[in-house]
Amino acid sequence: MTITNQSPWHLARRADRMNPSVIREILKVTERPGIISFAGGLPSARTFPVAQFEAACAKVLQDDPAGALQYAASEGFGPLREQVAQTLSQQSSAAGQPWPVDPAQVLITTGSQQGLDLVAKVLIDAGSRILVESPTYLGAMSAFVPMEPEVVSVANAGSGLDLADLSAKLPDARFLYVLPNFQNPTGRTMSEQCRAELSALASQRGLPLIEDNPYGDLWFDTPPPASLTARNPQGCIYLGSFSKVLAPGLRLGFLVAPKAVYPKLLQAKQAADLHSPGFNQRMIAEVMKDGFLDHHVPTIRALYKAQRDAMLAALAQHFPNHKIQPDQSLTWNTPAGGMFLWARLPAGMSAADLLPFAIDQGVAFVPGAPFYADLGDPRTLRLSFVTPSVADIQRGVAALAKALQIYTATVSG
Amino acid sequence: MTITNQSPWHLARRADRMNPSVIREILKVTERPGIISFAGGLPSARTFPVAQFEAACAKVLQDDPAGALQYAASEGFGPLREQVAQTLSQQSSAAGQPWPVDPAQVLITTGSQQGLDLVAKVLIDAGSRILVESPTYLGAMSAFVPMEPEVVSVANAGSGLDLADLSAKLPDARFLYVLPNFQNPTGRTMSEQCRAELSALASQRGLPLIEDNPYGDLWFDTPPPASLTARNPQGCIYLGSFSKVLAPGLRLGFLVAPKAVYPKLLQAKQAADLHSPGFNQRMIAEVMKDGFLDHHVPTIRALYKAQRDAMLAALAQHFPNHKIQPDQSLTWNTPAGGMFLWARLPAGMSAADLLPFAIDQGVAFVPGAPFYADLGDPRTLRLSFVTPSVADIQRGVAALAKALQIYTATVSG
Repeated sequence: MTITNQSPWHLARRADRMNPSVIREILKVTERPGIISFAGGLPSARTFPVAQFEAACAKVLQDDPAGALQYAASEGFGPLREQVAQTLSQQSSAAGQPWPVDPAQVLITTGSQQGLDLVAKVLIDAGSRILVESPTYLGAMSAFVPMEPEVVSVANAGSGLDLADLSAKLPDARFLYVLPNFQNPTGRTMSEQCRAELSALASQRGLPLIEDNPYGDLWFDTPPPASLTARNPQGCIYLGSFSKVLAPGLRLGFLVAPKAVYPKLLQAKQAADLHSPGFNQRMIAEVMKDGFLDHHVPTIRALYKAQRDAMLAALAQHFPNHKIQPDQSLTWNTPAGGMFLWARLPAGMSAADLLPFAIDQGVAFVPGAPFYADLGDPRTLRLSFVTPSVADIQRGVAALAKALQIYTATVSG
Repeated sequence: MTITNQSPWHLARRADRMNPSVIREILKVTERPGIISFAGGLPSARTFPVAQFEAACAKVLQDDPAGALQYAASEGFGPLREQVAQTLSQQSSAAGQPWPVDPAQVLITTGSQQGLDLVAKVLIDAGSRILVESPTYLGAMSAFVPMEPEVVSVANAGSGLDLADLSAKLPDARFLYVLPNFQNPTGRTMSEQCRAELSALASQRGLPLIEDNPYGDLWFDTPPPASLTARNPQGCIYLGSFSKVLAPGLRLGFLVAPKAVYPKLLQAKQAADLHSPGFNQRMIAEVMKDGFLDHHVPTIRALYKAQRDAMLAALAQHFPNHKIQPDQSLTWNTPAGGMFLWARLPAGMSAADLLPFAIDQGVAFVPGAPFYADLGDPRTLRLSFVTPSVADIQRGVAALAKALQIYTATVSG
């Protein structure tokens, strides 16, 4: 019998909205040997506590192999949920904004990316209006867009959101997604004043906030202001991650949700992958016990701060006119933590057009435009300062300056 | 400033369709100490290769800690994708149905449950008709239902699907979901003849098949017939799992998809959790190398076969009239592999009503009705024979017989 293939594979409408990540495509190019990459969002592998992981693996498999390797509860491993609740409670208390987190509100997720997927499933209908920052985290848009929302950007206002713009766009919005600390892609931090006003506005108008905080622990000089969720826990879902303080390759994060939505997020989690790997959860709980992060995280902060400083110094050296002639120079911000710095090309230029010249010179970055839900600013670019060494940061910025020179000559020529 | 909580949490329509898993709720009851559970779908912890995992953890972290702990490709770890492709190619060749699997078609998933979630996202629109067996795997329904399909059951016909019923229900269906080997919940296996006819029909009518095969390696006497996917790879998505042959707690599975849909499944995967844990993928690749499964899986088969035989013998002993008066006795099937046996109560009885009596007697099972997408047969129940020991199987079946006696007396009294 001859079997002919006639499968039509009638795909769901949402599949039209799924696209290869622009960043992912750029990252492929930058994997060429010899390229200094400011493009990726990869934590420095120097910060991974390998010896602790080795010891934890052995202990977890010796103590309770059947427990670690068997199917487990969708909510997550109990002791890890308790550690998360305790850490968040302590941090918010130290920030002067008590937020007593109940472990029953903590859901362990397969990376915080899964938290975004669960939020999308539980809160977005086709056509629902959702609000995001301008620009915003690309991975969040990838998670939200398959549920077919209308994505609306809220304007930025220096040290936070433009609340008048938010207020105008707020009616019927399902939620506002914000990344207040050392944002990806801009590195910017929302001010205390903006947090207080945003929290009050969201509460008064009944706007749920989805607060994503993967970088909050990576502050350089002072901790960021208290989280939005601590200010109104019943109105927020908080997303956290172990990727930046321990390692991304174990794929573990968490969310904290009010009782009004936790059960639905849990059911969505169960349908998505039953539970996050119990073995990995026990490894992380084992590494974190006895306050390991209290002395580990400061070493990450110190490393990243030194690398940010190296990038700032190199930029100031290679773009000496950035203060006296900002319109004709590359300009940039000074992130107070995290992994990214946000830069902008002179008027009329395009970061996407600069990129091939940069790659020719041996350096890569990510153009900023794809991070905008609406029309992006083509002059912007994201520079990660955490993956390359200080020496490579210096060489990379020099190469970037050279590339901009050549690109400028080409444009004006 | 006083902040009042007015968050309305307008949930997505699909959240109405999400419900706590019936089985999960039953499992909570059965976790009481002293209960012999035929209810769970847990592999026997005796089959977990703990020493191999210990060695693999250490080796992975020594060989390439940065690679194992860093962000990684959404497709999965290259060597693991190659092992999957090679294993499937060899198995299908041995089954007389060559299926050369290209590693580029293999997507590593966070358990095969995630494969179901990705299929749902890419193939189901609200209102899409999808076809399932009667009864079918509950976890698949949990994954499909949030995308708001119309779920239609295809009748069963002894050794497979009723193809006339399928043919009548087929128009406009997005896919048929089937679990041909030692099905969860029934333990039944689709015959060679039904596979050949189903494959031809699906191909001719352009019906995509989603073939779920978590138990296929766990055959007792002879391997099952060749997979549906091997017969028409362009018309099928194949889902596999490492949970039943290695351990579920690492949460790793895979899917194999034709080039027409692979990119969309990959994009959905990336949005769902970026990638499955690279550390776990390397552990499994390390354990599987040098043909470990070739001698490990036969030990699982032997163990489960002995436990199935113990359950069959205990049932025959405690329900001696099952052949001479089948209408007045518990009856059951003889699964040729896997983890589950399907039983049926005498006419007029309900497994849900029997359950409390069983728990009083110290034994638990899962009523069969929730596994049906349409009206379920209330007399059916699922018995897992893999988690309890042989001694507990004997005591559990005795307790089940006692419970049925009391329940019968209550009903007739």
